Amino acid sequence: MPDAILDDISHRRYNPLRGSWILVSPHRTKRPWQGQQEAATQTTLPKYDESCYLCPGNKRAQGDTNPNYKSTFVFVNDYSAVKEDQAEYKQTEDNTSLSSLLLKAEPVTGKCYVVTFSPKHNLTLADLQPSEIVPVIETWTQLYTAHLSPKSPLAQLAGATTLAPSSHQDNVSRPSAQYRYMQIFENKGAAMGCSNPHPHGQIWTTTGLPEEPAAELEQLIKYRREQGGVNLLEDYAKLEAEKEERVVFKNKTFLAVCPWWAVWPFEVMIIARQHKRALVDFDDEERKDLAEAISDVTRRYDNLFETHFPYSMGLHQAPLEGANAEIEASHFHIHFYPPLLRSATVRKFLVGYELMAEPQRDITPEQAAARLRNCGGELYRNKLQ
Amino acid sequence: MPDAILDDISHRRYNPLRGSWILVSPHRTKRPWQGQQEAATQTTLPKYDESCYLCPGNKRAQGDTNPNYKSTFVFVNDYSAVKEDQAEYKQTEDNTSLSSLLLKAEPVTGKCYVVTFSPKHNLTLADLQPSEIVPVIETWTQLYTAHLSPKSPLAQLAGATTLAPSSHQDNVSRPSAQYRYMQIFENKGAAMGCSNPHPHGQIWTTTGLPEEPAAELEQLIKYRREQGGVNLLEDYAKLEAEKEERVVFKNKTFLAVCPWWAVWPFEVMIIARQHKRALVDFDDEERKDLAEAISDVTRRYDNLFETHFPYSMGLHQAPLEGANAEIEASHFHIHFYPPLLRSATVRKFLVGYELMAEPQRDITPEQAAARLRNCGGELYRNKLQ
Ligand SMILES: O=P(O)(O)O[C@H]1O[C@H](CO)[C@@H](O)[C@H](O)[C@H]1O
Ligand SMILES: O=P(O)(O)O[C@H]1O[C@H](CO)[C@@H](O)[C@H](O)[C@H]1O
Repeated sequence: MPDAILDDISHRRYNPLRGSWILVSPHRTKRPWQGQQEAATQTTLPKYDESCYLCPGNKRAQGDTNPNYKSTFVFVNDYSAVKEDQAEYKQTEDNTSLSSLLLKAEPVTGKCYVVTFSPKHNLTLADLQPSEIVPVIETWTQLYTAHLSPKSPLAQLAGATTLAPSSHQDNVSRPSAQYRYMQIFENKGAAMGCSNPHPHGQIWTTTGLPEEPAAELEQLIKYRREQGGVNLLEDYAKLEAEKEERVVFKNKTFLAVCPWWAVWPFEVMIIARQHKRALVDFDDEERKDLAEAISDVTRRYDNLFETHFPYSMGLHQAPLEGANAEIEASHFHIHFYPPLLRSATVRKFLVGYELMAEPQRDITPEQAAARLRNCGGELYRNKLQ
Repeated sequence: MPDAILDDISHRRYNPLRGSWILVSPHRTKRPWQGQQEAATQTTLPKYDESCYLCPGNKRAQGDTNPNYKSTFVFVNDYSAVKEDQAEYKQTEDNTSLSSLLLKAEPVTGKCYVVTFSPKHNLTLADLQPSEIVPVIETWTQLYTAHLSPKSPLAQLAGATTLAPSSHQDNVSRPSAQYRYMQIFENKGAAMGCSNPHPHGQIWTTTGLPEEPAAELEQLIKYRREQGGVNLLEDYAKLEAEKEERVVFKNKTFLAVCPWWAVWPFEVMIIARQHKRALVDFDDEERKDLAEAISDVTRRYDNLFETHFPYSMGLHQAPLEGANAEIEASHFHIHFYPPLLRSATVRKFLVGYELMAEPQRDITPEQAAARLRNCGGELYRNKLQ
């Protein structure tokens, strides 16, 4: 590593993808921890739980019954944060008043889905084989395709891709309105607000372009403009593949790194090494490569502290509808934000300073990547059996 | 409330102080909660704990012994995130390379303090009388003053204010370098990463202007420029005092509101009603008013769910050093970010969608303010005795 001194001194690193800074204090890991401990994760879940609203054949909150699905299953969230139909809203205050400057609101409609990753209640992405993760990626791709604006340059492409109808789907027909963005994500583990261990993720689709993808898109567009048409994340993936020190995993299509600007202790980003705008840009081989990358990263995570490693994970890609410049500058990647810092029970809290001033991390991303590189191989809990 | 419909529909609200949006989904509170429960808070702490590194007379991590302080006590954090002295760092990579664009870092020096609020191990700000909070505010003011750039328009003013030397201080002499910003904050409760219940806050002072105050300053400066010299938070305080629906508490000098753009369920902002740039702008009466506001808000918080309400709290004010335009546009305010949503044990998780896409809240700020207005009066645990 050229700048070994960064292992010892406090410094800030710049995140060119968001356009923001983070504070790194490597010596701070020496601090003893006397605060909250996370609960050790339950390891004895049944394959089927009759009280789980995601298991095949069970009843859900609004009375619907789940089909006997074999791989993935998609349904409209029974407690959706946004809905297709709601009362109309127009700001009533007069436009010249202080209220119009300081009390601004806009309505949001959209659709929220739940996607199960497996019918088995006790599995996680880390337990699945890459071949079992492919249907999850196909399901995401189908949903993304079903919501794409017919005017998007991606729409034609999407039609051309034939995907196996591998999943059960409730209400996944084209939505009644054209939405702007689809956020695909997973909250895993009680520490990350997940209320059901059954392997599943969520998809929220909204009329507005949310803050995070909007900030990234702005930076991606700016980089193309300023650097003469090249892509920030393509350049970044190339650079990281050369440097190696932050790389956790790579195959032909994807690179998994602890990014230079990581906030969470073991944050990982899976980046498409070539310029891919969205899920629909991948072919069969590339989807297999993505499944392999997800499988590898989640397995390393669990191996690191020999626990079910909690995280929030999310896909960033082209908006469903947008200017061509936005869609062309988009670059497919996945963020993993895991909270654990030192062990299965000691997490990093992003609280006071982090909320009021600036994100702060203790170990360096290079140290995190080295540790993740060292825990590949079989899933620890399979070895124990 | 003019827009009662916002109680029922999903919408986004704009935060003019940060320049960002948040998603509000009021109907989502109907969702049952089956996830993680916070531990009920310990209520039987002793007044003095011999194993506490903050109690008077006890030994700290690096071997120092705390004085027998009577109100507040300040010392340099034994595990400081930033330090005054460290090895020099200059980015070694050549300036024209990809690295200089994508792997940017800068060194940070600074000083971190811990400030105890009371010698009693088992008290919190909510337990203290306003008159007992005044010394805390005086201590903050003294520290801020000691770190002000002699070139700041605030420096002269600071000299003129005479403050009672109410606190014990270790190493609070002028720092060896001029730092840019001082972040005063408190993490309260295990849920907010606090590792010691002894009432205390922290102060981190750094060479860089951190992200959050930087984003706010940009917006404050822009507002003055665009609106002809008036101040965003002065206008906002006036507007909220008229509207009343988001007001939690007010006195002559301060207004406490659940801001229009609140992210955390019971987020509160204490705003100086007139344009005050920093702690040094307050006189004795105004410090008493601030103590009253802090006392009122923290007591309402504890009363709401009859528990020691966790939160992160932080002061935003003028940078220690900066352009005059920055210092003049600064407006003193305090943010409270508390995680609890429904009860002493059920919190809001700002996770998947919130981290990947956009902050999302369930109850509206108006609903939160109404509930906080309804739980004033004596602290619940004093009534129980
Ligand atoms: O310094 P403390 O209170 O031990 O630590 C707490 O506050 C810090 C500043 O917000 C955070 O960086 C830590 O993650 C948190 O646990
Ligand atoms: O929808 P869930 O999984 O019940 O809820 C979880 O994820 C949501 C989306 O990130 C968050 O808004 C909730 O706070 C969290 O508990």
